[in-house]
Amino acid sequence: MTGTLYGLGVGPGDPELLTLKALRVLQACPVVAYPAPDHGQSFARGICAEHLTGEQTEVPIVVPMRVARFPAQEVYDEAAQTLRGHLDAGRDVAVLCEGDPFFYGSFMYLFQRLAADYRWEVVPGVSSLMTSAAVLGQPLAARNDLLTVVPGPSSDSVIRDALTRSDALAFIKVGRHFARLKALIKQAGMLDRAVYLERVSLEEQRILPLSEAGNDAPYFSMILIYAGGEEWVSNLPGPAELNS
Amino acid sequence: MTGTLYGLGVGPGDPELLTLKALRVLQACPVVAYPAPDHGQSFARGICAEHLTGEQTEVPIVVPMRVARFPAQEVYDEAAQTLRGHLDAGRDVAVLCEGDPFFYGSFMYLFQRLAADYRWEVVPGVSSLMTSAAVLGQPLAARNDLLTVVPGPSSDSVIRDALTRSDALAFIKVGRHFARLKALIKQAGMLDRAVYLERVSLEEQRILPLSEAGNDAPYFSMILIYAGGEEWVSNLPGPAELNS
Repeated sequence: MTGTLYGLGVGPGDPELLTLKALRVLQACPVVAYPAPDHGQSFARGICAEHLTGEQTEVPIVVPMRVARFPAQEVYDEAAQTLRGHLDAGRDVAVLCEGDPFFYGSFMYLFQRLAADYRWEVVPGVSSLMTSAAVLGQPLAARNDLLTVVPGPSSDSVIRDALTRSDALAFIKVGRHFARLKALIKQAGMLDRAVYLERVSLEEQRILPLSEAGNDAPYFSMILIYAGGEEWVSNLPGPAELNS
Repeated sequence: MTGTLYGLGVGPGDPELLTLKALRVLQACPVVAYPAPDHGQSFARGICAEHLTGEQTEVPIVVPMRVARFPAQEVYDEAAQTLRGHLDAGRDVAVLCEGDPFFYGSFMYLFQRLAADYRWEVVPGVSSLMTSAAVLGQPLAARNDLLTVVPGPSSDSVIRDALTRSDALAFIKVGRHFARLKALIKQAGMLDRAVYLERVSLEEQRILPLSEAGNDAPYFSMILIYAGGEEWVSNLPGPAELNS
């Protein structure tokens, strides 16, 4: 009998935001795979490190950050082959996914290659989207708000359009698009209700009114705009020690 | 010293989708509040029932489902007063929230009334939004998709517009708007990529291509549309026993 493929959402960074289910599945799987940078530690593995049994086979999936063509399909081809070897041998495989596996995650590339041939289960995780609202102390969206999630690389016209017709917005994958996004938000007259958040749920998290944020942003950053946002933004900062 | 107000996301229904943090906070709070219907059990309490210590003061917040004016602000006024009594006496209060507290949740009504006067912390939870994609085995959104979350009560024109300019959509609060939503999705030529989901993560969950769903839907239902959805929908059903 072949093994089962698990996609495990491990949450936004705080190890305590792992679910009971992800923890149980993680500890029951003899094989644990996770995305890893070409240099440095895997963020997803770090979130779960304390729960690894020490007897698991680890499969880092090294995705170069600077490849010309994204996503690096060859990397997923190769990783899928490695995981097939384990699954065919009857070993369950847990793939650790930052945040949630299917919210703009790379897990889909492995899932596409493997789901037709093996039993699978996806365990949803706490997303940085909801975590940003939580640490900010402001609804992500409420009542009958239209909420739009806008990836930073979207075109100017898509962004302008989204700003016009949404009650609440979340800009993700901000990174190198930060200055452009900020300018477009300012043009739309919504700077006073926009908040910048970085590395939410981690000790080094930063929360600032967008108007006071600098011009650089890491990949793990987000901008939130909420229709009722002026009053909430004026109450920043929220609790001082969220991870204490 | 006054107590701390906690908003605890308890996830979509499967008790195992509680986070380690929500569990720790829940068990440490002497007072536990939760929304409850005028008849029957509280869904949020049910998710956590096995973890209650038996020595906690419980505060059901009874929100009548049929009041003319929504939300029933008087209910939250009264609940906030009750919670103030506990907080002023130095007792920490956990408010249980289905899914995530700030994703279209009613927790905001208590938070608005209390956050300025007490220490607070919001613990994000696994949302039914991400859970729907997980049980379906289909990305909620990927790459640079524009994702729009549309509450069922939105007007026809708002819905038509959202269908036109989004790569991925999630319709929430479907309930009595089901037939109208289905008709609008069909008009937009997107019926073949739309999936209907009900009570995700619970034993009684249902997943159907929207074209095969009936004309009634409970409040806890959702419709997902994903840009690359034709190929995924054709692979339905996913795993047979997700909660086994």
